[in-house]
Amino acid sequence: MELSIEKGAGGFEYKVKDMSEADFGRLEIQLAEVEMPGLMACRTEFGPSQPLKGACITGSLHMTIQTAVLIETLTSLGAEVRWCSCNIFSTQDHAAAATARDSASVFAWKGETLQEYWWCMEKALDWGFRGGPDLIVDDGGDATLLIHEGVKAEEAYTKCGSLPDPTSTDNEEFQIVLSLIRDSIKQDPKKYHRMKDRIVGVSEETTSGVHRLYQMQGNGTLLFPAINVNDSVTKSKFDSLYGCRHSLPAALMRATDVMIAGKVVVVCGFGDVGKGCAAALKAAGARVVVTEVDPICALQAVMEGLPVLTLEDVIQSADIFVTATGNKDVIMVDHMKRMKNNAIVCNIGHYDNEIDMLGLETYPGAKKVTIKPQTDRWIFPDTKTGIIVLAEGRLMNLGCSTGHPSFVMSCFFTNQVLAQLELWNARESGKYSKQVYVLPKHLDEKVAALHLAKLGARLTNLTKEQAAYINVPAEGPYKTLHYRY
Amino acid sequence: MELSIEKGAGGFEYKVKDMSEADFGRLEIQLAEVEMPGLMACRTEFGPSQPLKGACITGSLHMTIQTAVLIETLTSLGAEVRWCSCNIFSTQDHAAAATARDSASVFAWKGETLQEYWWCMEKALDWGFRGGPDLIVDDGGDATLLIHEGVKAEEAYTKCGSLPDPTSTDNEEFQIVLSLIRDSIKQDPKKYHRMKDRIVGVSEETTSGVHRLYQMQGNGTLLFPAINVNDSVTKSKFDSLYGCRHSLPAALMRATDVMIAGKVVVVCGFGDVGKGCAAALKAAGARVVVTEVDPICALQAVMEGLPVLTLEDVIQSADIFVTATGNKDVIMVDHMKRMKNNAIVCNIGHYDNEIDMLGLETYPGAKKVTIKPQTDRWIFPDTKTGIIVLAEGRLMNLGCSTGHPSFVMSCFFTNQVLAQLELWNARESGKYSKQVYVLPKHLDEKVAALHLAKLGARLTNLTKEQAAYINVPAEGPYKTLHYRY
Amino acid sequence: MELSIEKGAGGFEYKVKDMSEADFGRLEIQLAEVEMPGLMACRTEFGPSQPLKGACITGSLHMTIQTAVLIETLTSLGAEVRWCSCNIFSTQDHAAAATARDSASVFAWKGETLQEYWWCMEKALDWGFRGGPDLIVDDGGDATLLIHEGVKAEEAYTKCGSLPDPTSTDNEEFQIVLSLIRDSIKQDPKKYHRMKDRIVGVSEETTSGVHRLYQMQGNGTLLFPAINVNDSVTKSKFDSLYGCRHSLPAALMRATDVMIAGKVVVVCGFGDVGKGCAAALKAAGARVVVTEVDPICALQAVMEGLPVLTLEDVIQSADIFVTATGNKDVIMVDHMKRMKNNAIVCNIGHYDNEIDMLGLETYPGAKKVTIKPQTDRWIFPDTKTGIIVLAEGRLMNLGCSTGHPSFVMSCFFTNQVLAQLELWNARESGKYSKQVYVLPKHLDEKVAALHLAKLGARLTNLTKEQAAYINVPAEGPYKTLHYRY
Amino acid sequence: MELSIEKGAGGFEYKVKDMSEADFGRLEIQLAEVEMPGLMACRTEFGPSQPLKGACITGSLHMTIQTAVLIETLTSLGAEVRWCSCNIFSTQDHAAAATARDSASVFAWKGETLQEYWWCMEKALDWGFRGGPDLIVDDGGDATLLIHEGVKAEEAYTKCGSLPDPTSTDNEEFQIVLSLIRDSIKQDPKKYHRMKDRIVGVSEETTSGVHRLYQMQGNGTLLFPAINVNDSVTKSKFDSLYGCRHSLPAALMRATDVMIAGKVVVVCGFGDVGKGCAAALKAAGARVVVTEVDPICALQAVMEGLPVLTLEDVIQSADIFVTATGNKDVIMVDHMKRMKNNAIVCNIGHYDNEIDMLGLETYPGAKKVTIKPQTDRWIFPDTKTGIIVLAEGRLMNLGCSTGHPSFVMSCFFTNQVLAQLELWNARESGKYSKQVYVLPKHLDEKVAALHLAKLGARLTNLTKEQAAYINVPAEGPYKTLHYRY
Repeated sequence: MELSIEKGAGGFEYKVKDMSEADFGRLEIQLAEVEMPGLMACRTEFGPSQPLKGACITGSLHMTIQTAVLIETLTSLGAEVRWCSCNIFSTQDHAAAATARDSASVFAWKGETLQEYWWCMEKALDWGFRGGPDLIVDDGGDATLLIHEGVKAEEAYTKCGSLPDPTSTDNEEFQIVLSLIRDSIKQDPKKYHRMKDRIVGVSEETTSGVHRLYQMQGNGTLLFPAINVNDSVTKSKFDSLYGCRHSLPAALMRATDVMIAGKVVVVCGFGDVGKGCAAALKAAGARVVVTEVDPICALQAVMEGLPVLTLEDVIQSADIFVTATGNKDVIMVDHMKRMKNNAIVCNIGHYDNEIDMLGLETYPGAKKVTIKPQTDRWIFPDTKTGIIVLAEGRLMNLGCSTGHPSFVMSCFFTNQVLAQLELWNARESGKYSKQVYVLPKHLDEKVAALHLAKLGARLTNLTKEQAAYINVPAEGPYKTLHYRY
Repeated sequence: MELSIEKGAGGFEYKVKDMSEADFGRLEIQLAEVEMPGLMACRTEFGPSQPLKGACITGSLHMTIQTAVLIETLTSLGAEVRWCSCNIFSTQDHAAAATARDSASVFAWKGETLQEYWWCMEKALDWGFRGGPDLIVDDGGDATLLIHEGVKAEEAYTKCGSLPDPTSTDNEEFQIVLSLIRDSIKQDPKKYHRMKDRIVGVSEETTSGVHRLYQMQGNGTLLFPAINVNDSVTKSKFDSLYGCRHSLPAALMRATDVMIAGKVVVVCGFGDVGKGCAAALKAAGARVVVTEVDPICALQAVMEGLPVLTLEDVIQSADIFVTATGNKDVIMVDHMKRMKNNAIVCNIGHYDNEIDMLGLETYPGAKKVTIKPQTDRWIFPDTKTGIIVLAEGRLMNLGCSTGHPSFVMSCFFTNQVLAQLELWNARESGKYSKQVYVLPKHLDEKVAALHLAKLGARLTNLTKEQAAYINVPAEGPYKTLHYRY
Repeated sequence: MELSIEKGAGGFEYKVKDMSEADFGRLEIQLAEVEMPGLMACRTEFGPSQPLKGACITGSLHMTIQTAVLIETLTSLGAEVRWCSCNIFSTQDHAAAATARDSASVFAWKGETLQEYWWCMEKALDWGFRGGPDLIVDDGGDATLLIHEGVKAEEAYTKCGSLPDPTSTDNEEFQIVLSLIRDSIKQDPKKYHRMKDRIVGVSEETTSGVHRLYQMQGNGTLLFPAINVNDSVTKSKFDSLYGCRHSLPAALMRATDVMIAGKVVVVCGFGDVGKGCAAALKAAGARVVVTEVDPICALQAVMEGLPVLTLEDVIQSADIFVTATGNKDVIMVDHMKRMKNNAIVCNIGHYDNEIDMLGLETYPGAKKVTIKPQTDRWIFPDTKTGIIVLAEGRLMNLGCSTGHPSFVMSCFFTNQVLAQLELWNARESGKYSKQVYVLPKHLDEKVAALHLAKLGARLTNLTKEQAAYINVPAEGPYKTLHYRY
Repeated sequence: MELSIEKGAGGFEYKVKDMSEADFGRLEIQLAEVEMPGLMACRTEFGPSQPLKGACITGSLHMTIQTAVLIETLTSLGAEVRWCSCNIFSTQDHAAAATARDSASVFAWKGETLQEYWWCMEKALDWGFRGGPDLIVDDGGDATLLIHEGVKAEEAYTKCGSLPDPTSTDNEEFQIVLSLIRDSIKQDPKKYHRMKDRIVGVSEETTSGVHRLYQMQGNGTLLFPAINVNDSVTKSKFDSLYGCRHSLPAALMRATDVMIAGKVVVVCGFGDVGKGCAAALKAAGARVVVTEVDPICALQAVMEGLPVLTLEDVIQSADIFVTATGNKDVIMVDHMKRMKNNAIVCNIGHYDNEIDMLGLETYPGAKKVTIKPQTDRWIFPDTKTGIIVLAEGRLMNLGCSTGHPSFVMSCFFTNQVLAQLELWNARESGKYSKQVYVLPKHLDEKVAALHLAKLGARLTNLTKEQAAYINVPAEGPYKTLHYRY
């Protein structure tokens, strides 16, 4: 794709796949709005007072239909927004088109190269004369990473004139990042400094992004306040568990149409993602086997009637393998070549390194036959048998389907909106320093409450006496911080 | 589409959407073969002796990937095959292309007009100088209908020179059938007589098709033997129950990506289809409400924890409505206009008249907005709210997804193969007269047995003493005819 | 127990364990009435017209609280009743006491010897000067058996003066039956003839009892009409499936308090009983393994996510073994000695010969330690490990708990009442000859309907047009005879 | 019961119901040992080194079979033990007898009066010349309470000669506590001071007990270190969730034999206890309705397909009501009188004040009919209808059944053993001050690991690289402190 910026009638800059899909995108956005009551309630509650007036927000987060509803919630609260995706495959092009036409600057399309991905990131962070965004909505921490690396490199340049050296790393993606920063310094050696000075804060929603933030907090290198949205209960216990319970079978069926009933399915990892996957698969009639490292999670699996075994125990008998560990090197090429013919291998954990895609791609004589996009059959020369790999080892629920459904996205996107509001409202209060914060529990409970009416749920009210008896405020929060739900 | 017949390198006549999809079709057929162990076992067991050598088989059955495996099982047993679809929307074009290129004459594409549909049927029945097929594989009974109507009209023509009058009926589709026969008689007033004389028998796999057959048997108008494959246990208790348990959520998610968890879903009808739907929806976290006419099925629903109510009771509170009754006029336009905004309405029962599509289409001021193919939003002028109708009221698991998964199709397609073999083998024995027959139970059990190995199941053998004790042969059949499973 | 008959204030003869339990029994009967809406509806509908006035009914059926509600439904419709249990362990003594005090003659207590059992049977059939009962309610067919054997022996005696010879059989129980008949003939050589002449018919509710009836019908030896209540849908698909789903875990927990979650449980047989057991166990978190002979039932198990293996495959790894086959010799002593220490072995199928109790009792050096009544630990001398056997291998849901809950009993007891009414009403019509009949489907549907209101279910009514469309009467029956539910 | 202490051949003091039940108790203890692998593993691992040699342990915890295995684990590690129950109804008399005969001093029987209860407590704390226990195992905090109140009263007495005044409180039970302390001070005004000086620490396992401990920590009045075992994951997420999932239906079926399938059951509270109850009931075929105060828990219920309503919404239509809130005044007499006839009301939450027993007992004209112990029917004079109350409003899983199964008890009892070991080993280290501590996560994981082998689970090991990648030690702990499981 030629990397040039366009500008639409609405005045928003963009680079998207096909602007003619905007109408289709708008229709799906309208459907999604009905399914995202938390975001719509934010518009109703906060819209009139325009609390984000004046805020420039850069988002780096899968550019999907649901994200469009998030973006338009932010803009309806007064913000200006520039957006890019946080994954090269996860953009829904019709969502990008509708958003770019109607509400925000968007740089995203399905199937970016890594080079294109970082170009989009740079554009989303480019607020022209304003020097940078006020707030960042981050998913996976790439926007935060770029700014931190940029600042570091600018400092080195200021101090000793050195420029980042892309050849200093083996990691292909990091080479691109370093090149980008190098070129930027050549043009403007203070760009990232101006940016970090302006930034009020970031809200981050993934385990890995949050992990990086805590590391930076530990090192004392964090450049601005951060709100960890990932550990809100309405994110961690809803998105992963109920989201994956929905999206794993949805993606598996779209990609392969394989009958799940009767199959032996191995779920690697029994955290929230694994729990959601296992529940869906068991309900569909599969015989689910779990692999686990953590004895507590393993015992939970057994209590649910799921055998806990090692991958070795079932490598030849299982029909479907799902990685959900958040770790690397879970299914190696040596495992894959011993699997049944047409065993399905997929990842819903985090990065594509849960599955040894490199080992597969470099296996001598291995042949890849693409059945359809995101569904490949890899044939081993020794056995002539093949396995089916989904989404090239990346997140299969995004690659082979449309990710989590709107309703569950609404839960954690509402957390994002409340976090952005909190950061912006407190921008001059000194409430937040360069640390990582969790959303307070009463906001977490508020997010849940905003989603109940849509489902017809009616809460019971505590009497004063009851509240006193269990020692909580009658209007909440109702639980201690360490309550596990 | 221009209605002309082409002929490929393999010598097969065809009319399909796009021959270039043949490779893609072939890849998916190869995947499906692994999931259809019953059909593949038939090839292994019967292929060498070519028992269908000399048989001309016409099939009228959804031209999908799975059907391609059925067709190629028939051809690998020696048959020649001509095929059309039994539904204007259900053809998978890549399956049609691959089959037409490699193994049989095919006349089918997704989105036929009714006119085109019956043209395809005529071509599938046209065996040139041979006068007609020896065997028919029927789904819904349209091929059988055409022949019976043809014979009836030819008789009337012979007797009193009268030709069928398309204006004698209000039913649009039947007008087309009558026109077709009228034109045929003008050209060749004995065509359908020659056809019925040649036909050895038909195997039929749907409730409605079988119903018509029993009616004809009752009237004494059935023109050739018929095997009712629909009531094999391995069809009735597997295809409907487990097939729909799989394909209902698959189609719902493809069409709308709506979160099922937390929603109120009404399943109209708790027969095998309804049972499968309700099980899937409950497992996905929906609150399922059942409507039923039959107190026994209603009591089954209640025993599964599902409230049984009337449509009126929940018309305003439910989020999703699924018809699975096999009856007509289940959800009327008057119901639809009182539903929640964006309520989803779909049919997985049988004909599109379960939902009052006509009422909807003719409702004054109702406006249809197509979100994407097979997913329409209908907006009522009075309330400005809309409902989402899937697959235009037709079978949503075929229209919005790929129907039942290969494995469950393998069960009842294996019944079809065994039925075709039975009819052909007995063609000169007089074993079958112009009646409707059920497959004998030992063949039903055989179908099941052929599918167990793939799933790693190991059967226990009865000892002689045990078999004697319960008064069955040690090798089966193991149950009485009226056993309900 | 001394075998003498007592007579209470209500005028009913009895032999029960302890009349002082009558009040407790009455309280539980009153609770059960609320849970047995079908029987109570019969009292309301038929009570006023006293349709069973004049009928003498003998019942041989587990003398439990629920049976008391059945008996009192029969008496409230006008019948006189005499009752015995059909199992030496199944009587609930408080139920027997309350019934004997208030409504019928009862001869039953928990823990009868076989000798006592048949004494009770004889008393229940003894209607004094009236010569015998008009109607029989049978469970397992022992009352029917005794009369048929009695008639046969009387014929032999009449013909050639021979008396039954108890030593002619190895079967201990049959020896008792023969002694009983021998003694009866000595006193009165026409007793059973008078009895069979009087009998209008029997209704029988078990698989094995019905099996015997069909054999007699086949042999032409059936002496009076019989209604097979066992194959009513509201019996076969409710009692076995939902009844065992309830009573298996209830009994397992009462007997052993073992945690079901996490355990490997083998269910031998996947008929209706096995299906109910497997569903309950899976839901409780067990890993359920099924053994099956019938490939269709096996495939059903696999579709529910349950591995189908042989007993050998899991004999050393399973924690709990449940027989539900209806066959004999399912778990042999050779299996039992290889099981894990404290493996639990129990039977919910039919007779105690599903488990090789004889083999266990005669195993050299095996030692039985009774933990509590109906829960024994058997220790093998070789390994010093032991297994836990429930209810001495007999039906564990009766032996270790109270059998099926009232609600499900109400379903099939209502079938019994309707069957008795049908036989009595038709007694002079010649409608029933010496054959086995099934209850007509409209009565089966009526039984279901009578149970729906209690559970708040609301049926939908078919319109005339809909009824015509699917070709059934608008008021039912709604299904064909072979419909499998 | 006459309150005198006896002494057995084993040298242990006791007051139990019936020493002749000791053999039966021993048999059940032996069965339970097989189901409590964590405790048995502690015996194997620590027994040889006798780490609790010299420790005097007082326990106040339901004196059941499982507790006997806990007690004998403590004694097999070298401790001396004195025990009482923490609930007047929860003692299993055969367990008490076996323990008293063989391993520890026991003061407990089923059905103590409150007076007797506190007498037992005093005896369990009476270590004669040694002045008091070294360690306390507490459940609900009554032992801790008595010592704290005793010390407080002794201080007041020392300071100003005042004695506790039982008439100063309305609470009947606290009157008894005050009397006890008053009498103790009269005899020995330093008893509780000597006791607290000796005590190394307490481990407490209930929510309410832990709540009191944190309050005392907050007030600065805590007299010795405490380990909060309640918040170990292997307690909180296992005992409540899986324990209640097992014991709720077990107790419901024992008490009433009511069919759960088809019933409407209200579960008040969707914490871990409520989640376990709801899961069991839904699986058994009930229609479960949840009431909740906390929007997050409410949203979890909805995601599981359970409607969240208020008690008012269903008060007239529900069949069974289960309180699981941990709060008071959940179901009031005003609710109860509007319920259906024979609605079942029970509590599995914590105290009997979840249900308004006082309101029921004092309702004018209300009549109680005891069906059997722990199952009462209360009849209202106005309507003549009645409701069934289980276990007099106390914990129904203890009152109507045997509480949680051994396996799940083993999980949190192993926590108790590890906590006692930790306190004792660190007694001279100053590691623990007068604070409340949680068990470190690696011990929590150890507890889980000790239970996996019994269930055949096989853990996967992290490689060094994987451990580094997710930044945890390869041998655990694997999760952050706030991870929710």
